[in-house]
Amino acid sequence: MAKVFVITGPSGVGKGTLIRELLSRVPELELSVSATTREPRAGEVDGRDYHFLDPEEFAARADRNEFLEHAAYSGNRYGTLRSEVERRLDAGHSVVLEIEVQGARQVRAAMPEAVLVFIAPPSPETLRQRLEGRGTDSPEAIDERLRTAEIELDAQQEFKHVVVNDELERAVEELVGIVREELDA
Amino acid sequence: MAKVFVITGPSGVGKGTLIRELLSRVPELELSVSATTREPRAGEVDGRDYHFLDPEEFAARADRNEFLEHAAYSGNRYGTLRSEVERRLDAGHSVVLEIEVQGARQVRAAMPEAVLVFIAPPSPETLRQRLEGRGTDSPEAIDERLRTAEIELDAQQEFKHVVVNDELERAVEELVGIVREELDA
Repeated sequence: MAKVFVITGPSGVGKGTLIRELLSRVPELELSVSATTREPRAGEVDGRDYHFLDPEEFAARADRNEFLEHAAYSGNRYGTLRSEVERRLDAGHSVVLEIEVQGARQVRAAMPEAVLVFIAPPSPETLRQRLEGRGTDSPEAIDERLRTAEIELDAQQEFKHVVVNDELERAVEELVGIVREELDA
Repeated sequence: MAKVFVITGPSGVGKGTLIRELLSRVPELELSVSATTREPRAGEVDGRDYHFLDPEEFAARADRNEFLEHAAYSGNRYGTLRSEVERRLDAGHSVVLEIEVQGARQVRAAMPEAVLVFIAPPSPETLRQRLEGRGTDSPEAIDERLRTAEIELDAQQEFKHVVVNDELERAVEELVGIVREELDA
């Protein structure tokens, strides 16, 4: 049966890489495309990277309860359209959402049958090294992300499945195992 | 018709005071009691201040989807039991939830018909003065709360009703007005 999989966890934990590997190894999965009010960046394509909505349309669709989850960050709004998920399920495809913890909690509230997987870093020190190694964040931004990560790590106990991203290949295999088991259930 | 009202907003914004006034002026409202795994503090009574659950029971009830919303903070879990809200609605009473922004988003996802009211501080400076005046928080805790408040203020645009808590009596009247209008609708 087609299912919804929510992959969540702290920023910088490696959700994106794990999901790319998951999608390549479990071809029946499709990745959901989020909606946002922020401006497209260079190279981003509407409908592929995001559904880019203007603030008025986003607000109107939120008022009509068209989002499975949504939230505002740094002045922009982000969300998952129910239609985006439902048209894939209706076509018999399972859907993967890459989403931060707050959004995952909303999906859990709206759709208790969704399968939630929390990706945890091996340790705060490892997370710091990864963020520093990425070289895209200032020291202040890294501190801020680590603080957020600490708060979000609390969230681990809320989720049935927790995959520690200690070593990529091992973590991918564990994630693929969870997904295959749920698809076969 | 009995309705669910969610009063949300940053920590320290004065939700508790506003809700006490609201309950005293709109007697048909009942305040929902949250569940938590944290230890009772001196003077707290089970079933009045919180439903105190041990971690195993909380986890089991979460697995059975018995919570309208739940989350973990500082190693403890907090949530609103559906039964707590539903038995009041079934008895014809409208229910008020005092809840932080993450929980409010979950209620919105699970129960789109709930009425959400965001309480906003007049300015970050006023919020700082209030937290300092309360005298219960360390300077570091106040900084942390202000950072959280800044993030949560973003949330304002997500909510239909926003009441700025600039002056208590004015804010209470605005809140009472919103609730009465929704109860009469």
